[in-house]
Amino acid sequence: MIDEKIQQAIGILQEKEIDMWLTFVRETHVMEDPILDFILGTGVTWQSAFIITASGETLAIAGNLDIANLEGRGHYQEHISYVQSIRNDLIAVLSRFNPNTIAINYSLNTPSADGLTAGMYLHLMSLLKNTPFADRLVSAESIIAALRGRKTPEELSRMRTAIDSTLEIFGEVTGFIRPGKTEKEIADFVSEKVAQRNLTLAWDREMCPAVFTGPHSAGAHAGPTDRVIEPGHLLNMDFGVKVDGYCADLQRTWYICREHETAAPEHVQHGFRTLRKSIDLVADALKPGVTGKAMDDIVRNYLIENGYEGYPHGLGHQVGRAAHDGGALLGPDWERYGNTPFIPVEASEVYTIEPRLFIPDHGIVTIEEEVLVGESGSEFLSPPQAELWVISG
Amino acid sequence: MIDEKIQQAIGILQEKEIDMWLTFVRETHVMEDPILDFILGTGVTWQSAFIITASGETLAIAGNLDIANLEGRGHYQEHISYVQSIRNDLIAVLSRFNPNTIAINYSLNTPSADGLTAGMYLHLMSLLKNTPFADRLVSAESIIAALRGRKTPEELSRMRTAIDSTLEIFGEVTGFIRPGKTEKEIADFVSEKVAQRNLTLAWDREMCPAVFTGPHSAGAHAGPTDRVIEPGHLLNMDFGVKVDGYCADLQRTWYICREHETAAPEHVQHGFRTLRKSIDLVADALKPGVTGKAMDDIVRNYLIENGYEGYPHGLGHQVGRAAHDGGALLGPDWERYGNTPFIPVEASEVYTIEPRLFIPDHGIVTIEEEVLVGESGSEFLSPPQAELWVISG
Repeated sequence: MIDEKIQQAIGILQEKEIDMWLTFVRETHVMEDPILDFILGTGVTWQSAFIITASGETLAIAGNLDIANLEGRGHYQEHISYVQSIRNDLIAVLSRFNPNTIAINYSLNTPSADGLTAGMYLHLMSLLKNTPFADRLVSAESIIAALRGRKTPEELSRMRTAIDSTLEIFGEVTGFIRPGKTEKEIADFVSEKVAQRNLTLAWDREMCPAVFTGPHSAGAHAGPTDRVIEPGHLLNMDFGVKVDGYCADLQRTWYICREHETAAPEHVQHGFRTLRKSIDLVADALKPGVTGKAMDDIVRNYLIENGYEGYPHGLGHQVGRAAHDGGALLGPDWERYGNTPFIPVEASEVYTIEPRLFIPDHGIVTIEEEVLVGESGSEFLSPPQAELWVISG
Repeated sequence: MIDEKIQQAIGILQEKEIDMWLTFVRETHVMEDPILDFILGTGVTWQSAFIITASGETLAIAGNLDIANLEGRGHYQEHISYVQSIRNDLIAVLSRFNPNTIAINYSLNTPSADGLTAGMYLHLMSLLKNTPFADRLVSAESIIAALRGRKTPEELSRMRTAIDSTLEIFGEVTGFIRPGKTEKEIADFVSEKVAQRNLTLAWDREMCPAVFTGPHSAGAHAGPTDRVIEPGHLLNMDFGVKVDGYCADLQRTWYICREHETAAPEHVQHGFRTLRKSIDLVADALKPGVTGKAMDDIVRNYLIENGYEGYPHGLGHQVGRAAHDGGALLGPDWERYGNTPFIPVEASEVYTIEPRLFIPDHGIVTIEEEVLVGESGSEFLSPPQAELWVISG
């Protein structure tokens, strides 16, 4: 997988006409540049440089005590070790290749392309002072977005497995949801099912699964509470497992029947169908070259035209090693999303589609699906939720 | 623990005469500023600011979907939520307090104080453009070094428990080490003992424990290999467990007897005693106000005067939530260590002392102890290794 992604990176450098990509890190057990999962697969202690060039050379420069581990893995053609300072070896390598552009891992917009810390950036600038290279630095944002976004067949296979396991667990928890149980009890049941499968969660345990029941729930990005499930509630869950490093991220909604009910009231079902339809509309429109802003507009406008409020977040994000993966985003033109809603969508990217709407007195309807962008359209990576899942009394 | 550390931070701000400390983060599940373990205890998705002032105010500004989780934890006095951009709320808070100095988390020297990414630094500068605050930013390095370094009684209690468990496991593995076994088999045994105790490792599994046997081993910071333990080998192990978020980091050395031996040859024992003596010398000298450079000199010079080579790394580092924790370091004046060997040692800090020396034909002798700096001296946090641990045939 690492070798495959390094080869992919060389192709991306050629395509983007960037001569060299320099990943500069230290003490990765304290805080790790997330790109290392793709191009290294291990950590280092001292300042280290991982260099990939458009002409296909790969070099690792690392402290003397780190180098044996790196050599043992053998992902780089050349390993250079230093004792007192990386300065001379780094400058010697840069001088040897004399790149016109050197991409480094900082990004205003994309957290997963922003693995260089502010201190390490300042340190790099001090190492390169009085060399011609300080003026040749560019952001690796586009390289990393492509490397993370364009899934290889092996990556897609892991993601499909993660989605399948997530759906299985949604099926199991459906039999456990009952009035009187709390959000936390539902979450604990799901955690247990994950542990039984020897899987890990796609994001922090405290919000994975996130469980929200009823009209007064906390809303997304909060953990499950002691709130009790009551008849008439909409209950939704945001959940995913991770398989071999790759995440699933899905949401499903249940309706808890009141006495004598066997289905949700018509206006609740109407809300669900409206949301479902909005997802189908955007899935039909999503293809290479469109912008996330345009995709978000489709759903947001459709919901507003149908009398619902616009959701207070973006329509969807990429998924991969991180549940919220980087690069292009399906979202509105809000400052917090930076330029990401305007980066064109590419083939082989995987996006979530996750609008929501609120039904007074009942709660929130959310559906989150994952779609794979193909050459001329997109496909759902699993059967979309077709109707509200009903818990009868 | 979080509330205790936030209160400690207010005192440190007063002492360092810094008006405000601003921790600026986003998508912490992608890459997390390590200070959040001390001042937040959870993560966020959108750009968020955690603000602590010298006058004792604490504020959290976060995206609308993150705020309920933060309010539920209640570590901050004031919670401010935004939808489209953090800009207005952040500038309003800065204007309200009008601090003369605003510390942010970047550091050339200390990775654990360098949690602000380069992209987030640029973003912050763009938010503060045309405000007076852009010129008032300083590094939070000294705040974070003090907050991580000065252990509270609760932190020390967790660290002592981690050390005790680590020593117990060293005791158990002593009965398992035999000629014919491989480094990997030893490491697997140790991992199993950690799992049986429901503990976690203090650093990455692939190098925790690190196991090195014989004169041709890979040296520190490499994982265990299929190298076979042979009579006459020195075997050493670098290992620690984590208890409630706090690490132990210790090394011990064994000698594998050859036929008819019941102890190591005299020159091997002499090496061990020399190393042991060097540790005692520095433990006697370590107290508040000394520099790590001076401490490293004591051991390095003593070993060289006794005919051994200087070790190719620093003498020791702080321990805490990270096995390699930040701030002052006991080390030589090498560029890779930056200014850290010159930051004065303070009371309530915990350091490792971990010199090494090589005995030709046998291997490496290493001992790593942890010491707590008191008001006028230092104390070992566990019984130091007094003699080589012998494996007889």
